[in-house]
Amino acid sequence: MNRFAVRFTYLLPIEGEPIEDGVLVVEDGRIAAVGRWGEVALDGANVIDTRPSVGLPTLVNTHTHTAMVAYRGLADDLPLFKWLEEYIWPAEGKTVSPEMVRLAYRLAVAEMVSGGTGAINDMYFFQEAAAEVLEEIGFRGVLAEGLIDFPTPSFGKPEEGIRIAERQLESNGRYRYVRFGVALHAPYSCSEALLRRGHELAKHHSVPLHMHVAETEDEVRQITERYGKRPVEFLDSLGLFEGVHFIAAHSVHLSEGEMRIYAERGVNVAHDPESNMKLASGVAPVPDYLRLGITVGLATDGAASNNDLDMFSEMRTAALLHKVVRMDPTVMDARSVVEMATLGGAKVLGLDSLIGSLRVGKRADFIAVSLDRPHLQPIYDPYSHLVYAAKSSDVDWVFVDGRPLKREGVLTFVEEGEITEMGERLRRMVLRALR
Amino acid sequence: MNRFAVRFTYLLPIEGEPIEDGVLVVEDGRIAAVGRWGEVALDGANVIDTRPSVGLPTLVNTHTHTAMVAYRGLADDLPLFKWLEEYIWPAEGKTVSPEMVRLAYRLAVAEMVSGGTGAINDMYFFQEAAAEVLEEIGFRGVLAEGLIDFPTPSFGKPEEGIRIAERQLESNGRYRYVRFGVALHAPYSCSEALLRRGHELAKHHSVPLHMHVAETEDEVRQITERYGKRPVEFLDSLGLFEGVHFIAAHSVHLSEGEMRIYAERGVNVAHDPESNMKLASGVAPVPDYLRLGITVGLATDGAASNNDLDMFSEMRTAALLHKVVRMDPTVMDARSVVEMATLGGAKVLGLDSLIGSLRVGKRADFIAVSLDRPHLQPIYDPYSHLVYAAKSSDVDWVFVDGRPLKREGVLTFVEEGEITEMGERLRRMVLRALR
Repeated sequence: MNRFAVRFTYLLPIEGEPIEDGVLVVEDGRIAAVGRWGEVALDGANVIDTRPSVGLPTLVNTHTHTAMVAYRGLADDLPLFKWLEEYIWPAEGKTVSPEMVRLAYRLAVAEMVSGGTGAINDMYFFQEAAAEVLEEIGFRGVLAEGLIDFPTPSFGKPEEGIRIAERQLESNGRYRYVRFGVALHAPYSCSEALLRRGHELAKHHSVPLHMHVAETEDEVRQITERYGKRPVEFLDSLGLFEGVHFIAAHSVHLSEGEMRIYAERGVNVAHDPESNMKLASGVAPVPDYLRLGITVGLATDGAASNNDLDMFSEMRTAALLHKVVRMDPTVMDARSVVEMATLGGAKVLGLDSLIGSLRVGKRADFIAVSLDRPHLQPIYDPYSHLVYAAKSSDVDWVFVDGRPLKREGVLTFVEEGEITEMGERLRRMVLRALR
Repeated sequence: MNRFAVRFTYLLPIEGEPIEDGVLVVEDGRIAAVGRWGEVALDGANVIDTRPSVGLPTLVNTHTHTAMVAYRGLADDLPLFKWLEEYIWPAEGKTVSPEMVRLAYRLAVAEMVSGGTGAINDMYFFQEAAAEVLEEIGFRGVLAEGLIDFPTPSFGKPEEGIRIAERQLESNGRYRYVRFGVALHAPYSCSEALLRRGHELAKHHSVPLHMHVAETEDEVRQITERYGKRPVEFLDSLGLFEGVHFIAAHSVHLSEGEMRIYAERGVNVAHDPESNMKLASGVAPVPDYLRLGITVGLATDGAASNNDLDMFSEMRTAALLHKVVRMDPTVMDARSVVEMATLGGAKVLGLDSLIGSLRVGKRADFIAVSLDRPHLQPIYDPYSHLVYAAKSSDVDWVFVDGRPLKREGVLTFVEEGEITEMGERLRRMVLRALR
């Protein structure tokens, strides 16, 4: 039996109050005990002392396109369609392959673990190649091939995409860290037939159905013109929210009535504040979602429109953005934001029975944020520091399933020099394609 | 003669185009040469190779209350007046002293240098204690005692504040890194007499006049009720912008006419996007300021309302915020934002003949951002990475006046364990005061 304990200055179990001088006991990858130092039986467990530190669950990134790190900073500050048509689509068309996906995932997981993320919900291509990387590292992911009515790097016609998705769904259970779901790209890029087919597939396999919904005003206009209904009304009229665990990314432009549809149907929202800012899509009405009891998680979106996969930055932005948009400094308080990034995210992925809070019996997925940094001193409230002052670089320990992926500030699965080498290989691939 | 060279993957002189494989030669604290590696005569200078890296000038924080790091995270997510009246003012009243200022400055400068900042514009109390710390470390500051019509920790009546300011101004020239200026707190907290007196003082001593202006809608309402004019109109009617280098912090709520007053009078703006978001003050019309040719620098404000002094975070937020507020992804492009944080800031402080760009003859104030991090790979455009992906923790080298304040990621002026010890001392002071 593999048994050890980790000690923190503040331990945030998320479900329950912060524990000063807290300790977590891990047994065979699961949480065996949580409590105050001195009050928890250690039974000779080896103790890792991370103090001065804050301990909390790993962060959950509820919507990303991981492999797009390959295009990080390739083009910015452009109108959306110029950006897509002149840079992103040509680059994707010529570079996305299983080899590129493996390489980009490896680089991206290094970035995500480094910043305390331990699980993602991902929509992209060649997701079996991605799954290999996640399994090898031991990093959790809900992955799905992005179904769409246009030719993609991994399939030409939507039926081929469906066949890939079916193959992936049938392989569920073979993986320890990966679960395949179903992803439909968006209301404007999928036909009614494809939407219904994707929904059936998710329902039949009891897996999450992941989709971009109401990201831009343009989408709302297009869908309203085409179907006489707004995007969420339209999807609801097709029964797309029924009988499945639905993950709606973005959800920036919803009417009051559409929000009520989300609440009634139990739709889960992946909130991407930085991507929505950078692409000038708008600000999602997250305080209203929370008021209506809708489950919300945080997300980075892909690194082509962010340009990082940093959940600490996303927490901070979420807390600040809604305050100024609502002109109310009390909305999106620090504790709510930390909950959104951990337990909220786990719920969005449908993994909250396993991760998202530090409760006995859950998997040992947790991080330690070191406080011995000038920007984290003095400290009065650990929640405040996590949201308003900490950076991803303050994460010194990351455990997934009780295994250390970052130890004393160093990634355990990356070789010296490997980061820049991977970056350089991706850069050459992309520049060659655009030439 | 102290002579050395520093080599970078990309060198951004700010005035001029990026230099690939660039080198900077430093001689007795000033920039002696800038160019491509192999094209610049090194004459046997010792070479520091920071590659893979981006080199650029130190960042300039144009508005802060440095010592307020003592109250970092003491209270958040509260309505403005509850925050001030129940937490900040009581804590300040009982804790601000020369000893506290020295301690807080030391901690804050460690934070700022760590994140690549090399110069600040500061309004607070006991600024001679602050000056000692900046001189000892070798960090640039324009400092001023905040003049106001209420009792403060350093003076009871405004005339006493004026006397302190006069004493400080007369000591100008004795310092290498510090310059004392004049600070008037705000239009609503200073009488007309005090405003005129502060202006005279700044004009007489040819130093910057620093003031909070039009930070909140409430201020606009108050000033309009009291004087029948909006804040900038009111200050202009007193002649406050004439004959001085005026630094207007915040400047969130200006009419079109008030913006034209700024443009005509050459008023400099310190833009604090994160503080304005956290306190729900609003969004300053910075794209309009730039269109009108107004000089704008970036700023963090104090760490009680931010909660850090991180200029990388401020660059990113500035770029993202204005895009979503204007619903235009092309505003506040990465290059403009980096210029604002460097040369723009130096202009705001009136120090652009010395710092803010890497030009032969200027002081050797520059930083190296390391690119061997997963979130900075691959790289296509150094400006994009600085704004949209880099973090303050990526700054591995900081030079001010040719002296290294951070070397290979380690602060040169801080002892092991000193950070948490300083934080703990400040924490105890504050908690004792609030008890």
